[in-house]
Amino acid sequence: MSRSLEKLIKSLGRLPGIGEKTAGRLAYHLLKCPDEQARQLAESIGQLRDNVFFCPRCGNITEEDPCDICRDERRERTVVCVVEEPSDIRAIETSGSYRGLYHVLGGRLSPLEGMGPDELSFGKLQQRIETSRPRINELIVATNPSVEGDATALYIQQMLNGSQVRVSRIACGLPAGGHLEYMDALTISQALHGRHNL
Amino acid sequence: MSRSLEKLIKSLGRLPGIGEKTAGRLAYHLLKCPDEQARQLAESIGQLRDNVFFCPRCGNITEEDPCDICRDERRERTVVCVVEEPSDIRAIETSGSYRGLYHVLGGRLSPLEGMGPDELSFGKLQQRIETSRPRINELIVATNPSVEGDATALYIQQMLNGSQVRVSRIACGLPAGGHLEYMDALTISQALHGRHNL
Repeated sequence: MSRSLEKLIKSLGRLPGIGEKTAGRLAYHLLKCPDEQARQLAESIGQLRDNVFFCPRCGNITEEDPCDICRDERRERTVVCVVEEPSDIRAIETSGSYRGLYHVLGGRLSPLEGMGPDELSFGKLQQRIETSRPRINELIVATNPSVEGDATALYIQQMLNGSQVRVSRIACGLPAGGHLEYMDALTISQALHGRHNL
Repeated sequence: MSRSLEKLIKSLGRLPGIGEKTAGRLAYHLLKCPDEQARQLAESIGQLRDNVFFCPRCGNITEEDPCDICRDERRERTVVCVVEEPSDIRAIETSGSYRGLYHVLGGRLSPLEGMGPDELSFGKLQQRIETSRPRINELIVATNPSVEGDATALYIQQMLNGSQVRVSRIACGLPAGGHLEYMDALTISQALHGRHNL
């Protein structure tokens, strides 16, 4: 067996969700595909590591300081959506239904994983709220709907207690196209709890 | 959104079985993981393309001429296992139950995909049978158990009709740990047809 191939299979197998079999399949593909396609992938990985850093304002990933969302003058500057990770920004942007700014926490409160308030960018968020002009009117906390995500949302709400900023939380309930029949009890309970008048 | 990231997601999305969502997840992982891990993956892809070629004897992938299987003096040199692709060699070697040599056809007969006898290495196989010393006694045709794989096996059997080489075919039947209940009709029919005395 070729050592280069074994090495690539090992490297690919370290990626999340890629087991040994998939790694093998991908490696054989990279062996058989046009040279340009394989080289481009290798090059893209290198460029990503060379060019990308975190926006010092919002924590989004970017190649320029500040990132294109912070720079975009057409976006609403009075609303900030708080997310756990930069990948969450991508998901929200894809939905096309949000035109404000973002703030990346860099994770969520999780004592078991050693994530306390000091590990997340709460301080930077508070500073941003104090110094931003125009003033930030609303924080939409879009941490994930888990115990940790909810705790993180609560922490932010308490941190800003007494300030003039409205703190809101994204809705929990049935996903579009979901079936009640297949939904877990907690989701159904939250969907009922979060009902609104028609 | 970062251009480097978009480029990497596009490159990853071209891999087989990797959709846009998985590509995104992998790209974010490559952004967050230790620098060394990402660089190593990129480097491995480059090395694979630089170092690996096809063994001129058997068609296996290799970094040396001939490949380590062709070179291994402890292997049986009178039995050759015929496979479609180099990845099949890897699967058989992992099983640890074969100690002979290999011959890679480079595909299977499939008129619909434009694969005729001239596209596969039948000529090289025949030449190998005529010139190999010690003589090749048996060809085990291990093309996949599909219509095309079976047709390819039949072609080889007819090609060597009248020669002294025994042509055999790997067994078809229920996979180990399989359940009759969930098996398709063709597999069951082949398992019955291929029954042997106990």
